[in-house]
Amino acid sequence: MSLKHIGEQTVRLDTHPSIAAASCVVGKKEGEGPLKGYFDFISEDSYFGENTWEKAESTMLKQCFSIACDKAKLPPSNIQYLFAGDLLNQCTGTTFGLKDSGVPYFGLFGACSTMAEGLSLAAMMIDGGFAETTAAMTCSHFCSAERQFRFPLEYGGQRSPTAQWTVTGAGTVILNTSGKGPCITHVTTGKIVDKGIVDPMNMGAAMAPSALDTIQAHFQDTGRDYDYYDIVITGDLGKTGHAILRDLFLSESVDFGHKLMDCGLLIFSLEGQDVYSGGSGCGCSAAVLSGHLLAGMTDGRWPKILFCGTGALMSPTSAMQGDSIPGICHAVALEMF
Amino acid sequence: MSLKHIGEQTVRLDTHPSIAAASCVVGKKEGEGPLKGYFDFISEDSYFGENTWEKAESTMLKQCFSIACDKAKLPPSNIQYLFAGDLLNQCTGTTFGLKDSGVPYFGLFGACSTMAEGLSLAAMMIDGGFAETTAAMTCSHFCSAERQFRFPLEYGGQRSPTAQWTVTGAGTVILNTSGKGPCITHVTTGKIVDKGIVDPMNMGAAMAPSALDTIQAHFQDTGRDYDYYDIVITGDLGKTGHAILRDLFLSESVDFGHKLMDCGLLIFSLEGQDVYSGGSGCGCSAAVLSGHLLAGMTDGRWPKILFCGTGALMSPTSAMQGDSIPGICHAVALEMF
Repeated sequence: MSLKHIGEQTVRLDTHPSIAAASCVVGKKEGEGPLKGYFDFISEDSYFGENTWEKAESTMLKQCFSIACDKAKLPPSNIQYLFAGDLLNQCTGTTFGLKDSGVPYFGLFGACSTMAEGLSLAAMMIDGGFAETTAAMTCSHFCSAERQFRFPLEYGGQRSPTAQWTVTGAGTVILNTSGKGPCITHVTTGKIVDKGIVDPMNMGAAMAPSALDTIQAHFQDTGRDYDYYDIVITGDLGKTGHAILRDLFLSESVDFGHKLMDCGLLIFSLEGQDVYSGGSGCGCSAAVLSGHLLAGMTDGRWPKILFCGTGALMSPTSAMQGDSIPGICHAVALEMF
Repeated sequence: MSLKHIGEQTVRLDTHPSIAAASCVVGKKEGEGPLKGYFDFISEDSYFGENTWEKAESTMLKQCFSIACDKAKLPPSNIQYLFAGDLLNQCTGTTFGLKDSGVPYFGLFGACSTMAEGLSLAAMMIDGGFAETTAAMTCSHFCSAERQFRFPLEYGGQRSPTAQWTVTGAGTVILNTSGKGPCITHVTTGKIVDKGIVDPMNMGAAMAPSALDTIQAHFQDTGRDYDYYDIVITGDLGKTGHAILRDLFLSESVDFGHKLMDCGLLIFSLEGQDVYSGGSGCGCSAAVLSGHLLAGMTDGRWPKILFCGTGALMSPTSAMQGDSIPGICHAVALEMF
């Protein structure tokens, strides 16, 4: 086994690829939530100036990428690789958002784990000596997701209490070799975990076992104590999935206490915003990471974060054919030096 | 710029990640075509023993992966990373095919360029020191693709002469550090190229400009002569797209002659199999590479191949909303030593 591989699922990145800039763009509802101060742009218009929600999603991602380049003071041509994807069929949110970027592009599909997946690969490209600057990004839009995965919005379908609210949001992280700012020190890549959950209105339950699997692998591979990180934050398990994950860890005699958090629980006010179990969608963890979490790292609140993107790898077709909902979780260790 | 990066889009892999084993599984029609002698398994049953075509696709991929592991004499647990994806919405062909593999998994979406994209990343993971053994794989199924992208099969929709036939097939390539067998020496990562083609029945025309862009970048970045490779083979441009690519190169005063080939033109007999412009789908280039092309390398026919996976990054929704069809092409240099 190579030296960078320090366990079955984890690699250590000794060059510490660092975050040069990050940006997040969200919709109106997200902009009314508790994290409103951390977003770079809040659109009052859910169409983002376009005439379909799918085009709105692409435009949001494009705008987000542009803001990130601006903050990093880099033209897109200085970025060697983009890693991105989204929830839309054939990932067209990303394709149309990035098609004019002129940057070599690796398309990903990791469902709501896409930001963590992209961040993993973008960091490994730098640590492996393939690039000096890379970017990871993703997006989701409530309206395009709702009609693709559930019902036409006009139908006003009932939601179950375990259902989550797809975040209208995009996040971009630009990495480089400079070593300043939050750095990526370890990447733990997830395996697909399937515990047989079949309720597409309860994605949290489907994803929680994969989060347990990857987070346990991370601590086992690195040999770090369970209290090493200031926070261990999952992508978007929501209220139901978060409680399940907490229980799963307690059954293994691990109690993260208040350190175990979830992006889906942070982005909305569960009491005031009628979002049932919390936020979801690729844009959820991407926007929370790019704004709130990185701000918390640089201002000293959380110098060490284990960011654990979680994804439910299902489609409406697989659900209608009675298939289970396999989950995946990719963990990225972010540390200040 | 790092040393491995030898041009805007190309990296040189000095450790020469090599192909430990490759496998391909196809359907009956593919097994009646000119490459029938190169497939590891030809299924007489288009359902592969399942009760839906989507499940058939997953089962085909699972079988293909199993054969590859067997040929490499490796248990799946010895593989550090899988890179895979497919054409189905949310890439469920791959998810359900690999969910029990227990191997860390990076999900990709590159449409029909997926094998080249996966091969690029799988090789870079090894060259970057992150793994000793990785795998790239993908699949497509005529019946699942047809009903998702075009019409219900029962409808018997008319096809246009430029339309291609989605290959029922899967391909797996296992890479390792050993340096024997065909090696990957360079990876040229594609940019999204959009020339405004809007006809979803003419994917070849949509993808040809991206193939031109990436192949030109490869030769410019490496400084190699245009006659360096024994063959330069695109994924699945088909008859129409292949002719366009040939013309595009001629307009740049480059004539590859018989060295310019296309997997979509090899897998079927265009005269005898009623496939119009040729084969397409993720499984097309994957199965042709894993069987016919690698056999041609090891038997000395083509010691040097530039394998150029091409993908059309559209969805039925984007097409119905009047969007163009952006293309992408990733090139991987395969050489015998």
